[in-house]
Amino acid sequence: MGRWEPDSQGRLVEAAIALFDEFGFDRTTVADIAERAGLTERTFFRHFSDKREVLFFGAGALQELLVDTTVEAPASATPIESVASALEAAGELFSERRDFSLRRQRIISSSTELQERELIKLASLASSLGEALRQRGVPDPTAALTGEIAIAVFKIAFERWVTEPSAPGLAQLIRESMRQLRAVTASA
Amino acid sequence: MGRWEPDSQGRLVEAAIALFDEFGFDRTTVADIAERAGLTERTFFRHFSDKREVLFFGAGALQELLVDTTVEAPASATPIESVASALEAAGELFSERRDFSLRRQRIISSSTELQERELIKLASLASSLGEALRQRGVPDPTAALTGEIAIAVFKIAFERWVTEPSAPGLAQLIRESMRQLRAVTASA
Repeated sequence: MGRWEPDSQGRLVEAAIALFDEFGFDRTTVADIAERAGLTERTFFRHFSDKREVLFFGAGALQELLVDTTVEAPASATPIESVASALEAAGELFSERRDFSLRRQRIISSSTELQERELIKLASLASSLGEALRQRGVPDPTAALTGEIAIAVFKIAFERWVTEPSAPGLAQLIRESMRQLRAVTASA
Repeated sequence: MGRWEPDSQGRLVEAAIALFDEFGFDRTTVADIAERAGLTERTFFRHFSDKREVLFFGAGALQELLVDTTVEAPASATPIESVASALEAAGELFSERRDFSLRRQRIISSSTELQERELIKLASLASSLGEALRQRGVPDPTAALTGEIAIAVFKIAFERWVTEPSAPGLAQLIRESMRQLRAVTASA
């Protein structure tokens, strides 16, 4: 194994997803993943802390996109409009990788441990959105509440996107969920 | 130790909370808890699967209350009104045990593992509320979305209740959060 390993991270993710799909998450080891990718375990651990993290390596980039888009929304945007624009930007990002998202989701659904990890990542995204709104001058509890609501909307739209075979694009499902949110809350 | 152990569950909870407070969650063992409660480890395991569950033993009753109140809301109640009445009923229940809730929350805040467990229990409550709404004839995705939103509202109200020293009652904070939810979503 030379020092030059073009896109070793991408190869490790691809290998891991294929193995999780084929043999199950629990029965796949880091050694298996490295071997399938034609890399060493040491290289694996330069990219990921454990095999679970292979499925969540995009969380940091997603969080950054959500926070940046929220912070940079026009000054005239209301809190919910700011986070809605961020969710739609995330929706566009995911739409480019629908196949990967579907395969990943199938693996996550197969394991309670992974489902729990997903919930924890989503809660962390909600907190980050709340913090981004505070940076826009939105006070609490509105900032925290809007962050939580945004992630509720995202979760529902994402679930539809990965489970409904003829679902439209994720960005469109997010807009639909936002409309449903308004309809639901207006009816109190 | 006789076979007759009045309120052994309550004694175990009280002993565990006191020890977690004093020595930390990680450094307290089941043996410590049983000893402090004057009971055996075997009795402990008749009530709880592990020391973590001592802090979540009320989750089942909370879930039942939320689901029953949602299902039994007047037929004229909209989805959000049904879950709002359930959250307020839960708020009344918690208000009777504010001291316990504050001590419990301090312990949970001290441990990432416990915070994660709390998130997972909240997600399960959101699913249960969605299911309760489906029982009322509310279709998806409205049912699932309303369940998620309700728990977002509850989470924000609960956080205020346990962190703001002069916070009003939890039921009142839930009503306030519901009003904020309407204000936030109406501004899109």
